[in-house]
Amino acid sequence: MTAAGPGPVGSPTVLVVGTGLMGTSVALALSESGVRVHLADRDSAALALAADLGAGSPEPPWQGPDVVVLAVPPRAVGPAVQAYQRQYPQCIVTDIASTKSHVQAEVEAMADPTRFVGGHPLAGRERSGAGAARADLFQDRPWVLTPVPATLAGAVAAVEDLVRRCGAQPVVMAPQRHDEAVALVSHVPQVAASLVAARLTGADDEAVALAGQGLRDVTRIAASDPDLWTEILVTNAPAIRAVLLELAADLESVATALGEVGDDPDDRGHRVVTDALRRGGHGRSRLPGKHGAPPAAYVTVPVVVPDRPGELARILLAAGEAGVNIEDITIEHSAGRPVGLVELAVRPEAADRLAVALRTAGWSVHR
Amino acid sequence: MTAAGPGPVGSPTVLVVGTGLMGTSVALALSESGVRVHLADRDSAALALAADLGAGSPEPPWQGPDVVVLAVPPRAVGPAVQAYQRQYPQCIVTDIASTKSHVQAEVEAMADPTRFVGGHPLAGRERSGAGAARADLFQDRPWVLTPVPATLAGAVAAVEDLVRRCGAQPVVMAPQRHDEAVALVSHVPQVAASLVAARLTGADDEAVALAGQGLRDVTRIAASDPDLWTEILVTNAPAIRAVLLELAADLESVATALGEVGDDPDDRGHRVVTDALRRGGHGRSRLPGKHGAPPAAYVTVPVVVPDRPGELARILLAAGEAGVNIEDITIEHSAGRPVGLVELAVRPEAADRLAVALRTAGWSVHR
Repeated sequence: MTAAGPGPVGSPTVLVVGTGLMGTSVALALSESGVRVHLADRDSAALALAADLGAGSPEPPWQGPDVVVLAVPPRAVGPAVQAYQRQYPQCIVTDIASTKSHVQAEVEAMADPTRFVGGHPLAGRERSGAGAARADLFQDRPWVLTPVPATLAGAVAAVEDLVRRCGAQPVVMAPQRHDEAVALVSHVPQVAASLVAARLTGADDEAVALAGQGLRDVTRIAASDPDLWTEILVTNAPAIRAVLLELAADLESVATALGEVGDDPDDRGHRVVTDALRRGGHGRSRLPGKHGAPPAAYVTVPVVVPDRPGELARILLAAGEAGVNIEDITIEHSAGRPVGLVELAVRPEAADRLAVALRTAGWSVHR
Repeated sequence: MTAAGPGPVGSPTVLVVGTGLMGTSVALALSESGVRVHLADRDSAALALAADLGAGSPEPPWQGPDVVVLAVPPRAVGPAVQAYQRQYPQCIVTDIASTKSHVQAEVEAMADPTRFVGGHPLAGRERSGAGAARADLFQDRPWVLTPVPATLAGAVAAVEDLVRRCGAQPVVMAPQRHDEAVALVSHVPQVAASLVAARLTGADDEAVALAGQGLRDVTRIAASDPDLWTEILVTNAPAIRAVLLELAADLESVATALGEVGDDPDDRGHRVVTDALRRGGHGRSRLPGKHGAPPAAYVTVPVVVPDRPGELARILLAAGEAGVNIEDITIEHSAGRPVGLVELAVRPEAADRLAVALRTAGWSVHR
């Protein structure tokens, strides 16, 4: 909470409404940062579990909270803003729903939009419920805030403070921009995953038994809650429709190309198929790496090593002596084999130095 | 190799042609099972790495091999069968290409089909090359064999023996049945993942920065080799086309429904969307459990460490001194932060010993 915020200087009091995965994670993160957190949920068992996990007090605050965080489904946000603004006229309200234009329109229709700041933390897990909550769920993740011109600056500052306390990075965007972005990076991928998985419903067991990790990854999010996701999709329908139709057209063009391929690997059919796959690889390479960081350009130095205690340490000691910081390590070995392959990821300028140092010390370096 | 096989009773001699991820993994698994494995690859660096990893001898066999395993792209299989049958007239040839009808037709057109057994191990990794190979890649995975009526029973038995030596489960199917099944569980998911990822190529950085784990999973296989995958897709074009067109129609029907949704959560638009998501959940639930899991269930010991050269080496030295073999390492750090989280995977019985040793030496162990 900044000095400009309407609450007291120092730690604010926050009421988190909805103690599912997301609400409880927000509450845990805020509690850890020194915020006084109160919890509310119509489901008393969920509320008790969240409180027991240390997320906050299950009792209402004595005085009005500085900020109310609504961790409820998109369509419940508008009525909840109205209700909490009536109950606590001074409070700032924010939400964490996945769609923002629809929520903003509802708030403007039924409540005071000056003290409402739409929000959407880009974080989650495939598990749900308070028991799956983590204080570090938002660490280094983007958390979009969608203030409009009418929003009070102090309200935005107060919510930004909470976002930072959760370890997340506030990103200010217009509601419509946000909705177009998540249609592309979240909502359409959800529909695509669900529909790829849906094609398995009519398949015979013998075919399904051939499925591997690729299909499992593509369809992992197809296990998401259909009712919650229907609400997300219908409250962002126009943005999603546009991307879905583009995707359907892309699929049809690959299908058409597959009908045209001949023996010449340079014919039009081949080129359309390869181009689609290449664009996929290019799009994929744009995704940020771990923790939302840009993909780091490390170089890998592969080393064949005997699979025994202390061997890896000796390699890393040699790397340290050469002044090389190891950014990541991948160990490839299978039980019973006498050697493994260790891949050391380092900054590009350090790769040659590392390779020379390890080779000089007697290791088999494949660079 | 069974007594019915044409090779000597006991361990056969196998020539693995192609030392990429798949060929080297087959060679590692067969070597581990006692088979005499020889390796061949036009790329001498790949061949040297595979040999150094213990996959087999880089020299040609003295006598003709009992079985030649072709780990080459689909279109290279026919000519390779012809060439190896000329060189080793007694040998049995099998392949591991992802499409089977096309390969079978080529073999029947240019070689002796009685000693050829089409094969396809349903296993893989998103990484490629000999360095990513694992002897346990095929453990408990299905490995389809597609003999035709003309195939010699002894040839099928010999290849089944190799499949079992790799830890995989032989599944006999007609080539066409195989191709329809993999169109559904592998090839169409690949196209869908690539096209979802391809939609990111035109997106602005702000939108891409909002991507999370869901999109990362859906598009993981979009990083696959576009040239190899073009070959897979075009050699299974008819089966893939049919499923792609169904998927495109499904996407369009969800897009249409999103254009129809009103305020009533029971209207047709809502029902079509929810139904698609539910069918996705149902299809997803049909997928078999995790196959090819690492042979040992490792336990993770998380350690918070300063992010500087040599620190990891000191941890691993301490682990070595405690007699603990580190099976895998995950490093979680973001640029600019002074500490990282290192997760050390060890055998369950070693976890406590490791935690005590590291804690005693002053590290912050979260176990």
